[in-house]
Amino acid sequence: MTDPGTSLERRLRAIEDRLQIYNLIASHPPSADTGAAAYAEAVYSEDGVFDRGADLPGWSGNKGIGANLQSPGHQAAIAGGLAHFTGLPHVTVDGDMAVVISYLQILAPKKSGEAVEVPNHGASRGYHIHRVVANRWDLVRAPSGWKIKRRTSRLVDGSEGSREILRGALAEYA
Amino acid sequence: MTDPGTSLERRLRAIEDRLQIYNLIASHPPSADTGAAAYAEAVYSEDGVFDRGADLPGWSGNKGIGANLQSPGHQAAIAGGLAHFTGLPHVTVDGDMAVVISYLQILAPKKSGEAVEVPNHGASRGYHIHRVVANRWDLVRAPSGWKIKRRTSRLVDGSEGSREILRGALAEYA
Amino acid sequence: MTDPGTSLERRLRAIEDRLQIYNLIASHPPSADTGAAAYAEAVYSEDGVFDRGADLPGWSGNKGIGANLQSPGHQAAIAGGLAHFTGLPHVTVDGDMAVVISYLQILAPKKSGEAVEVPNHGASRGYHIHRVVANRWDLVRAPSGWKIKRRTSRLVDGSEGSREILRGALAEYA
Repeated sequence: MTDPGTSLERRLRAIEDRLQIYNLIASHPPSADTGAAAYAEAVYSEDGVFDRGADLPGWSGNKGIGANLQSPGHQAAIAGGLAHFTGLPHVTVDGDMAVVISYLQILAPKKSGEAVEVPNHGASRGYHIHRVVANRWDLVRAPSGWKIKRRTSRLVDGSEGSREILRGALAEYA
Repeated sequence: MTDPGTSLERRLRAIEDRLQIYNLIASHPPSADTGAAAYAEAVYSEDGVFDRGADLPGWSGNKGIGANLQSPGHQAAIAGGLAHFTGLPHVTVDGDMAVVISYLQILAPKKSGEAVEVPNHGASRGYHIHRVVANRWDLVRAPSGWKIKRRTSRLVDGSEGSREILRGALAEYA
Repeated sequence: MTDPGTSLERRLRAIEDRLQIYNLIASHPPSADTGAAAYAEAVYSEDGVFDRGADLPGWSGNKGIGANLQSPGHQAAIAGGLAHFTGLPHVTVDGDMAVVISYLQILAPKKSGEAVEVPNHGASRGYHIHRVVANRWDLVRAPSGWKIKRRTSRLVDGSEGSREILRGALAEYA
């Protein structure tokens, strides 16, 4: 009944792939906001790439991507209240490859300005949405689970880079 | 084993419906932020309706809804960095109909104000959350997949319209 | 074919658990923003706890948690346009227990400041992100579905509390 050749097994596996990938993507913000190098080393392939575009540095290799999370700059961002926030991603699985298109907000508590009171929810200066980025995650199936081969992220600011990424979620409608 | 009458087939299909609907909802922000009329034409039924309430225009028909994405106003918003951001939706499938309740943020880069530096993440004026809306998506099953019969969206601003929509996610607890 | 001892039944049930939990988490923002005490009474166990940390009051018992949603303070927040916004959660099911790690934004319309015009999307003063919190939901399986035994939420502000919660999504990478 679990012969990979059966339609039933194929359907179940496709579903389980989707759910594994949802958890992989949901783990990213916690890893970024705690500086978890072990996550990056485990989920990126050895030659994995994280490409943030021309305006920010990128990294190659799972160890380099993990090391960035331990850098003084990233640790300072965490100490300041860095928060990554991801919405519902679009996921396409095709055999041993998968593509995820997701939006991500990068937030930080405001350091100045007046505190606002919301009844039953205390007072707060609130948060600054520092960046809104479109992400494309190219995944490959490995014996230990799905691995990130390449993450490409681009700021949503009216330039073409983010739109090119976002169209990856619309391939079936082209 | 895939006789639709069996409990197994019914369960698998219910799961696959959920996952198809998640991708349909996850495709919406990319379609809005790239002006993809083809998406709107494909996913709305021919007589589909997009109702934004009294304060903003609405549209009828999949072609009209798609055409709006190509309008000069919408294209200007895209050129300015328009970003739609959707959270985890609540999905209820009932045979050949489904109801989705979701929150959506509509964001745009700030055009003025001081840039803020976040370590390891560059400097940015940040984003303005222009609207936060509650959405109800009434879906019907068609031979080519789930179609949107009606999308109703209301601003979350203390008025009753959004609360009426949101209660759609709480029907089983009423 | 639905003998709980079979591998097939176990896999299907694990998938259905995930999807039920996604809907449980997706129902939370609508319940908070409509003041739906019935939701809280139904989804928290009788001895359930909602712990918001030292800076804000917490509650014990499903009835107490529900009653808070009906309090004058919470009702005033709703009248002012309170919006909860949750991203993609990380979910781990282990038999009759489950752990969910999620981010949540608590938003409110700005009461002052200049309105901004976004083409095709009207004018708005926009929203204030009042709080960004990390949540841990400890769930238990009950005959009527998954119940919340404990919800722990901590502000993401650079302090250790939120990081401790977020690491719950990274256990498999530790």
